[in-house]
Amino acid sequence: MAMLKGVRNVFNISPRFAAVYFKNVVRGLSSEPPLTSEQYPDLKRGPYSEVTNDDLAKFSSILDPHRVVQDPEEIAPRNMDWMKSLRGTSNVLLKPKTTQEISEILAYCNSRKIAVVPQSGNTGLVGGSMPVFDEVILSLGLMDNIISIDDISGILVCQAGCILEKLDQFLSERGFMMPLDLGAKGSCMIGGNIATNAGGLRLLRYGSLHGTVLGLEAVLPNGQIIDTLSTCRKDNTGYHLKHMFIGSEGTLGVITAASIMVPYLPRSINVALLGCQSFEDLQRIFKAAKSMLGEVLSAFEMMDYDSVKASEFIGLQNPIGENNFYALIETSGSDAAHDEEKLTALMEWLMNEDLVQDGTIATDKQKMTNIWAVRENIAAGLLEIGYVYKYDVSIPVPRLYEIVEDLRNKIGDKVITIVGYGHIGDGNLHLNIVTEEHDPKVHQLLEPYIFEWVRDCEGSISAEHGIGFKKTKYLHYSKSMECINIMKDLKKMFDPNGILNPYKVLPNK
Amino acid sequence: MAMLKGVRNVFNISPRFAAVYFKNVVRGLSSEPPLTSEQYPDLKRGPYSEVTNDDLAKFSSILDPHRVVQDPEEIAPRNMDWMKSLRGTSNVLLKPKTTQEISEILAYCNSRKIAVVPQSGNTGLVGGSMPVFDEVILSLGLMDNIISIDDISGILVCQAGCILEKLDQFLSERGFMMPLDLGAKGSCMIGGNIATNAGGLRLLRYGSLHGTVLGLEAVLPNGQIIDTLSTCRKDNTGYHLKHMFIGSEGTLGVITAASIMVPYLPRSINVALLGCQSFEDLQRIFKAAKSMLGEVLSAFEMMDYDSVKASEFIGLQNPIGENNFYALIETSGSDAAHDEEKLTALMEWLMNEDLVQDGTIATDKQKMTNIWAVRENIAAGLLEIGYVYKYDVSIPVPRLYEIVEDLRNKIGDKVITIVGYGHIGDGNLHLNIVTEEHDPKVHQLLEPYIFEWVRDCEGSISAEHGIGFKKTKYLHYSKSMECINIMKDLKKMFDPNGILNPYKVLPNK
Repeated sequence: MAMLKGVRNVFNISPRFAAVYFKNVVRGLSSEPPLTSEQYPDLKRGPYSEVTNDDLAKFSSILDPHRVVQDPEEIAPRNMDWMKSLRGTSNVLLKPKTTQEISEILAYCNSRKIAVVPQSGNTGLVGGSMPVFDEVILSLGLMDNIISIDDISGILVCQAGCILEKLDQFLSERGFMMPLDLGAKGSCMIGGNIATNAGGLRLLRYGSLHGTVLGLEAVLPNGQIIDTLSTCRKDNTGYHLKHMFIGSEGTLGVITAASIMVPYLPRSINVALLGCQSFEDLQRIFKAAKSMLGEVLSAFEMMDYDSVKASEFIGLQNPIGENNFYALIETSGSDAAHDEEKLTALMEWLMNEDLVQDGTIATDKQKMTNIWAVRENIAAGLLEIGYVYKYDVSIPVPRLYEIVEDLRNKIGDKVITIVGYGHIGDGNLHLNIVTEEHDPKVHQLLEPYIFEWVRDCEGSISAEHGIGFKKTKYLHYSKSMECINIMKDLKKMFDPNGILNPYKVLPNK
Repeated sequence: MAMLKGVRNVFNISPRFAAVYFKNVVRGLSSEPPLTSEQYPDLKRGPYSEVTNDDLAKFSSILDPHRVVQDPEEIAPRNMDWMKSLRGTSNVLLKPKTTQEISEILAYCNSRKIAVVPQSGNTGLVGGSMPVFDEVILSLGLMDNIISIDDISGILVCQAGCILEKLDQFLSERGFMMPLDLGAKGSCMIGGNIATNAGGLRLLRYGSLHGTVLGLEAVLPNGQIIDTLSTCRKDNTGYHLKHMFIGSEGTLGVITAASIMVPYLPRSINVALLGCQSFEDLQRIFKAAKSMLGEVLSAFEMMDYDSVKASEFIGLQNPIGENNFYALIETSGSDAAHDEEKLTALMEWLMNEDLVQDGTIATDKQKMTNIWAVRENIAAGLLEIGYVYKYDVSIPVPRLYEIVEDLRNKIGDKVITIVGYGHIGDGNLHLNIVTEEHDPKVHQLLEPYIFEWVRDCEGSISAEHGIGFKKTKYLHYSKSMECINIMKDLKKMFDPNGILNPYKVLPNK
């Protein structure tokens, strides 16, 4: 296996990577991917109507005409995912501003059997917000109003198109923060986060969106508006419908607004980056951190050697020496002295146990940001190196890294690198395999091999990215036929014409 | 309004209460309530088959014959709720031990259109686990196996019939605890807790069951077993079906097992009981506690004067002086010195601000238990005083106590007392009105008045108790017609014959 050993930064890389780097970055990896319909020739377009001039006139009567976009240049990036791996052929982009407009659009599209794909930040990794064929793109981007903030109880109500980072900034000025954080925060939108049940970096501490989302407003495919936008922390009145929409990836309804329980901004944050020799040591560090940091532990991320090298590849600096594994530990608390004392006690214990080779603790904001940047830019770094096969799996922690080593033994000689990083605190591994170019033979070696591996240890084939378009045929590795059948019945009940986000989540056969 | 002032304990009570006490406790409130069908004469029995000898033979072939109970004495307490307010006429009690047995029973009952009511601890307050007419009672009580505990990740897997307190004991021996705790813990079962989405005393810190339940096994009315018993902390593969069963009160399926994320047992626990003059002061104490205790705050309960008197009524001792309002504050943390320092700082601040009239801090277990007992026995104390009208509502915190005062002004002269207590940290008020005997005139003054009040301030008419049987006709105060219609469609999809827990959750019209 070609480890990234020696690839210190973009100015000091091995000849092989220099060649890849030159090809992809300097020359520009600007070429478009093949059309999705060409990549998946067996997939047939559903029996949906094509958009006519009458339809466009109707859309223009619901929205202002300038929010009914047909300009191919404006639509092009909406037809393509962030990874440039899929490309749809939509030629209509609708930009509603209100729930009522979305209701009218969907009711009309449903009556005309026009397929619609809701799209917010378009940062998904499984093609969930991509038009597969010529679906109308319903952008949530103009639905970006903050509706209210209750600064006694800490409850935010906002529209679906609010960008995660902007919400976090808005809240921080009021002493609160969002309960979730992810690398894509600068462009992902809260509606998309909820639709995919995004996990991210703060889940360890603040839990999943099923716990923090108090209420939702959503529009069903028939245009009906479902208002469960409660700001009550507790509400046991009938079936808990909001959960139907959380994680259903825009296939049952379009989320238009949410009420979210937001935690207090911690008074004290510390970030430590530690290097260690083995995954076994990393697990021991994790267990000690959980026990000794207790309620102030807010993140525990792991990266392997090659992951950190990938971030260095795009110019980011690893602040400690080279190590086989890295643990990024964050504490958030209400008392700086107490938190530091806990962290110091942990560090002393780890040193005494000889578990840590190298490390640094950051308390000032810039240094913390720099450490987090190394973790958050692994994905971007890998994309610069070559074609990336991305897997996002849940595996019981003791076996979390075994799959990386197993794959290195199996196909290490056929790829540039295989890296493992992620949220060890949640048993969530991001497994990435990089080749120079898309290689169907490697693809065949990876799938369904990885999914079988994950199923056999009772993991999940998609921990947080969702099923989207790319993984529908592998759903059965994590869901029984009984569950898939209930999902199909639910889809039929909510969307009898199947107009909303077709070809997603459910297997096509 | 007849405040409970002066009712120190059972040996020192006012003449009026002495009379009530004598009638109810000494003479014994042993009489059965009228049959539910007599109390609700407009409600008609559904078109279900009556159980025949052939049916009994079939049940005996699925279970052992001795687990098909027809003995009226054994069935009698299962026909009646904890509050002795409802009484069904079931004459068959089934006691399965396995999921497979439940599957076969439900499949058979579905084919024969025999109505079934699942019942676990029978501690609910809205009649959700009561037979209304002659439904077969399906007891979960023998399904009480602990299946596994992962003591690295803290994940418990157990059957639905495990008693909450026993689970907590089992976990405490392994360094963990249940993420929920309630007054009924000694008899309530985890399956029932999940079916009603029970909240309780630890919700403030550990969140709702939608966040802590990782997976469920459930049996659908047609006998199909749905296995989503994942132990992954993160799993975004398709619709999140488990949430359909959490809080649906046994109307969509019977929960048979659960996997639950359990927190570490805290190393340090402190409990403080504080007395203050007004609800405004109580809110300021709450805000200060959230801010100064931060991540170690694990409970914040409020009680008014009469609530504490009710506990005293059954012999419990209030460890501090008499106050208009009481705050029960609990901290749980990993470092005793840090937690005590935070709590001491809070106390000093509260004293300086003159917010607290009286108070005590407990660090030893017995004293903590005694303080919690005062809070946990309010409901039992009220039941000894007379007939209790119970309401469990979510209201924005600033207006939480207004409804108590409003009701006192409105009907205070017609009742023994009106008390307010509950989980102020969650905006959840337990509002209880006590009369000597059930009084239809008082009932009419309370309903729908309270529900309208709650709706008008955008609260929830049932914060944690659920809708069950008693509140179905008031569901629309917290749910739109669109939501109720979707609920009906879901019920139809999961239970086309309507055999599972009929007359519950959904309005009968």
